[in-house]
Amino acid sequence: MTSVNVKPEELKSLALKKLLQAGLPEKNAKEVTDVLVHADITGVHSHGVMRVEHYCKRLQSGGLNPNAEFSIEQVSPSVAVLDSDDGMGHSGLIAATEHGIKLAKETGLGFVSVKNTSHCGALSYFMEQATSEGMIAIGMTQTDTCVAPHGGAERFLGTNPIAFGFPVEGGSPMILDMATSATAFGKLLHAKETNQPIGEGLALDAEGHVTTDPHKVENLLPFGGHKGSGIALAIDALTGVLMGANFSNHIVRMYDDYDKMRKLASLVIVINPEKLGNPLFAVTMAAMVSELRSVTPAPGVEKVLAPNDPQVAYKAKCEEEGIPVAQGVYDYLVS
Amino acid sequence: MTSVNVKPEELKSLALKKLLQAGLPEKNAKEVTDVLVHADITGVHSHGVMRVEHYCKRLQSGGLNPNAEFSIEQVSPSVAVLDSDDGMGHSGLIAATEHGIKLAKETGLGFVSVKNTSHCGALSYFMEQATSEGMIAIGMTQTDTCVAPHGGAERFLGTNPIAFGFPVEGGSPMILDMATSATAFGKLLHAKETNQPIGEGLALDAEGHVTTDPHKVENLLPFGGHKGSGIALAIDALTGVLMGANFSNHIVRMYDDYDKMRKLASLVIVINPEKLGNPLFAVTMAAMVSELRSVTPAPGVEKVLAPNDPQVAYKAKCEEEGIPVAQGVYDYLVS
Repeated sequence: MTSVNVKPEELKSLALKKLLQAGLPEKNAKEVTDVLVHADITGVHSHGVMRVEHYCKRLQSGGLNPNAEFSIEQVSPSVAVLDSDDGMGHSGLIAATEHGIKLAKETGLGFVSVKNTSHCGALSYFMEQATSEGMIAIGMTQTDTCVAPHGGAERFLGTNPIAFGFPVEGGSPMILDMATSATAFGKLLHAKETNQPIGEGLALDAEGHVTTDPHKVENLLPFGGHKGSGIALAIDALTGVLMGANFSNHIVRMYDDYDKMRKLASLVIVINPEKLGNPLFAVTMAAMVSELRSVTPAPGVEKVLAPNDPQVAYKAKCEEEGIPVAQGVYDYLVS
Repeated sequence: MTSVNVKPEELKSLALKKLLQAGLPEKNAKEVTDVLVHADITGVHSHGVMRVEHYCKRLQSGGLNPNAEFSIEQVSPSVAVLDSDDGMGHSGLIAATEHGIKLAKETGLGFVSVKNTSHCGALSYFMEQATSEGMIAIGMTQTDTCVAPHGGAERFLGTNPIAFGFPVEGGSPMILDMATSATAFGKLLHAKETNQPIGEGLALDAEGHVTTDPHKVENLLPFGGHKGSGIALAIDALTGVLMGANFSNHIVRMYDDYDKMRKLASLVIVINPEKLGNPLFAVTMAAMVSELRSVTPAPGVEKVLAPNDPQVAYKAKCEEEGIPVAQGVYDYLVS
């Protein structure tokens, strides 16, 4: 697959133009663009500008509210529910994280449930939003289903991602952002295009047999067997069920029902270590990631990496050489 | 390995007697016993009464405070830090969960960090404590290390368990309680005793090669590859680092340093769905687990189970037939 290297600022303005054309106000369009290019520049292209065409189609078909007005119900000093008014999920999560940071600064903790939201892009963005203020963050969201539960032949779980962010004194934050599926749909699509088998234990065929043939894949497996399956379920319960939204197979599908609002739910938790009595949290985190990187590597491994190390390295490379964007995606953006 | 079937009440009184003899006050001894027998009766024997001998040794060697007095610092209406005064971790987590439930009833959320604590037994106990009051709960704790991080040849992570509890209307709660290691040390010990190979991808030898020979195992692997490794790290950060306690290899070892206080940290989060606007949470959870159990099973699987289904079935069997206790453990308890 050929790709074009594009400077971050140029990529932002290309994506921005499309989103503005689709009717999104400038503030929201800039927020979405920022989240998308963050994904691309950290190597998570599946959540980057390749999604712009999809969002524009949804905006134009009535399945996203371009003029969403968020409202916040403050349940108690640390707890709030943000109604995303069927707007862009990226903006919803930015607002929820911003509010969570505010609550955490005041009370030590911000717990912000988000309802009536939509696809929000890479959670790592919101984690960085919090760590840049010295806060710890946890984020999670439900998605429509494409993953079989442990022991099942059919889909019941979304890729339901969860993310954690920790500030690290004098370095990049320690950020984990993981789908709870065993592999990403993007990798599957790539294997299909190149006719390469996928790894063992990642996906099921239509009858529920484990398959390595990307053309036969019907559903993904959860990561980590019954444990990952349980975590994925817990995420759906902590987001969708908690907010009285749809869950599991009842969720409006991302690449279908373009005229329906998706009404997803997400959750952001922000923790202020200083208020909890530890002003040196980020200093200790620096010691932790440093000690982790010093662990003797297993045979065949060059170096033990801390979470976010590969993303930070990828970003540095992109800032030097530009962000690789698939030719088809680039063609759409400049069209 | 031979075992004796013991009625739950008899097992409780045997364990209680030993803990009282070791100098624990009756209230705490009863709490510990309750947590231990809960583990045995739900099939988690590794966290059951087999640990009594260890706790007694630690109490008698000065590495646990029998007369701990807990104190709670209320940071803000939803946030508290509980100082466990080097007492039994079981009692510490019961008190933290109780306080978390109180805060959640008032504010929608209780976030209780626990410091100066010790081994707390099976987290599922505290999850049930919350779900029995209609609350959602999340619990996690750091442990001493026996798990290599992703890509590493040496230990850096504990088995750092995490648990989730969700109330289910008209049924048993949905509870997940999982170590973040790929397998339990108990299973490894059993394989050693019976000279059976362990599964692939569970553990490393002294040089960091993956091994299936239980006699060569030096460290465990995390569950779910780099994702599980990241979650285990996050748990250490959200407990130990947050509370300014030791982390990773700095943690006082459970089966060593018997005269040292372990000073672990744990975290309990309790969420009140009603305060967050959803009085029907447990009703929807009932629909969710029911739909999950109706998923077509994969070939070779009899039925898709919801988290906690096996534990609930095991408990029913034990209530009928008694709890199987390893002969050696029983001999100690009656000695």
